[in-house]
Amino acid sequence: MIYELTIPQFQKTLRNLSHFLDKAVQLSETKKFEVDVLLNSRLAPDQFNFIRQVQIACDTAKLSASRLTGKEAPAHEDNEKSLQDVKARIEKVVSYLATFKAEDFKECETKKITQPRWEGKYLSGKDFAIHHAIPNFYFHVTTAYSILRHNGVEIGKKDYLGELPFKH
Amino acid sequence: MIYELTIPQFQKTLRNLSHFLDKAVQLSETKKFEVDVLLNSRLAPDQFNFIRQVQIACDTAKLSASRLTGKEAPAHEDNEKSLQDVKARIEKVVSYLATFKAEDFKECETKKITQPRWEGKYLSGKDFAIHHAIPNFYFHVTTAYSILRHNGVEIGKKDYLGELPFKH
Repeated sequence: MIYELTIPQFQKTLRNLSHFLDKAVQLSETKKFEVDVLLNSRLAPDQFNFIRQVQIACDTAKLSASRLTGKEAPAHEDNEKSLQDVKARIEKVVSYLATFKAEDFKECETKKITQPRWEGKYLSGKDFAIHHAIPNFYFHVTTAYSILRHNGVEIGKKDYLGELPFKH
Repeated sequence: MIYELTIPQFQKTLRNLSHFLDKAVQLSETKKFEVDVLLNSRLAPDQFNFIRQVQIACDTAKLSASRLTGKEAPAHEDNEKSLQDVKARIEKVVSYLATFKAEDFKECETKKITQPRWEGKYLSGKDFAIHHAIPNFYFHVTTAYSILRHNGVEIGKKDYLGELPFKH
């Protein structure tokens, strides 16, 4: 279950995030401004900008998968500047996530997950996924979305949720 | 597992959302403006305002629980106007969520969940939780957060995530 909550859902949502960027490009072309303006926008002066929100969403997905399974994560330098860089960063993480299988998560629920800033405390894998990885991931994707939405990019809830696996 | 992903997590996060409002009141007192200004703010002219974001976060929590379990949900009229109204709405939903037990979710994964706007299509309970209820809930809480953050309210990631169940 934790696999399904994270890997395919993170992949889908990161692809949706990449799709927000296509809509950002459309707006920049229509209104004739550099799309970099949007990449560097933020909603408050002491908030991370769009690029940084994407980097953190990517890292949340990548590092959650790595921590929950014990598989090593590739390093990414956070040096994205252009639209192409940002889209490539997303693509790299989506590809990394594709290397996971449900069985990699077999023992993750009871795994001890920690971070240096937690000063020796830890979360069980299950609590980490529910209380940290999942809300954190959606937080940064939604904040990236809001930065674009605030600046007039024509995205809506459907772009955020993406395809739903409807049955008939 | 779906119980743990939804009920306690929705309760905690809705309480965090109520706490954002306490910080909003602080700012309004320091800067001497009516807190209603924040309640009616939005990030784009064609986006729902703060109150509506809270109402939808509340409804997502309430109706997801109801749909996944088949238990009836109380009706709420969406007539909140004041800070007290908004806090009371959140409290009502937190109390409703407290009526659920893990065993209410025993058969939810295979339940067929539908909405009028889905025109006869449905999602399995598990897919509904993963692809719709959870991302949707965090979307509206984060958007409410962003509206306040954009207007200078001193909230941060810790206020959003709330208490983490650390072990030593």
